[in-house]
Amino acid sequence: MQRLVSISYHLKPLGQRDLLKYFEHYSNDEFLMREIEETDYKLNFMHVLSQLTKAPDVSPEAFMQRIREIRNEPNMHLILVIISRKTGNIVASGTVWVEQKFLRGLGKVGHIEDIVVDTSVRGKNLGRAIVEALTRIAFQEEGVYKVILDCSAKNVPFYEKINYKKTGNNMAIYEDTWKEKYTPLK
Amino acid sequence: MQRLVSISYHLKPLGQRDLLKYFEHYSNDEFLMREIEETDYKLNFMHVLSQLTKAPDVSPEAFMQRIREIRNEPNMHLILVIISRKTGNIVASGTVWVEQKFLRGLGKVGHIEDIVVDTSVRGKNLGRAIVEALTRIAFQEEGVYKVILDCSAKNVPFYEKINYKKTGNNMAIYEDTWKEKYTPLK
Repeated sequence: MQRLVSISYHLKPLGQRDLLKYFEHYSNDEFLMREIEETDYKLNFMHVLSQLTKAPDVSPEAFMQRIREIRNEPNMHLILVIISRKTGNIVASGTVWVEQKFLRGLGKVGHIEDIVVDTSVRGKNLGRAIVEALTRIAFQEEGVYKVILDCSAKNVPFYEKINYKKTGNNMAIYEDTWKEKYTPLK
Repeated sequence: MQRLVSISYHLKPLGQRDLLKYFEHYSNDEFLMREIEETDYKLNFMHVLSQLTKAPDVSPEAFMQRIREIRNEPNMHLILVIISRKTGNIVASGTVWVEQKFLRGLGKVGHIEDIVVDTSVRGKNLGRAIVEALTRIAFQEEGVYKVILDCSAKNVPFYEKINYKKTGNNMAIYEDTWKEKYTPLK
């Protein structure tokens, strides 16, 4: 993507960190990358997320409250969005948060979640831009020793292109199985 | 495992939650399950962790500080330990923390990490006890819609026995690859 000369409005960085250099690096004349904001419920965010999995609409109040909760977490929990300058809507998003561990000398791990690109703008490398930005921020700003993510088999080649390697299997148990197989303790 | 009749000392639950019923359910005459405590650096915790990956010793002060940070996170970040009543040392551990999302109606996901059982007590179902307890707590106390974890191919059957299903691939990028492939942004 081309470099953007300037970003036209004030960005409130996560905590005290200045993430502007990352956003500038991955923005261009067509698309703007920035951190999600409290008022972004107007910008189609839930619609984009719904292309990933079930993501029913939530009220503006609930949306803003969740943003505030996430921003107030003591460890990095960063949601990036890419906005189409043409429509003003969010067209891609991704999240990274940082887990504090005991192993590796009280090491930190970056977890990437919920990478999604709107169908209207696929093929423009926005997914790659989001994942690269999240990866850079986790290593450069947080000093994590690794960044991990889960993906389907068909997306393995995409992540391999940006230097991720398959290291294991992702396992899950969903609520319906839990209800069927476990008796709640009293 | 047999039920334990009583747990003999006061447990400070995570936040305001009372997790005692889970700990009692999974404790017996030989082993005690509880939440990790600030003073557990004396109980071989780092030695057990080192059987999972690199886990060099840390100072008691750094250990206590990290425990406090974890307990102060607004979302559940729970480290369980199992203690041998014979030696008084930690012989198994596992972690769950809860991620707040926007999708699935502001849904929550439980992430299980760092499951480890000391070589001296393998084959006694302690790994299963830890994973089951973390899974129960995430669903029953936090109302997550799923619990996920990453594991190697050889551990897939273990997790399948406790109703986890393989849902995808785990991908990682480590610090050495990051340093080799990315130029830090200035």
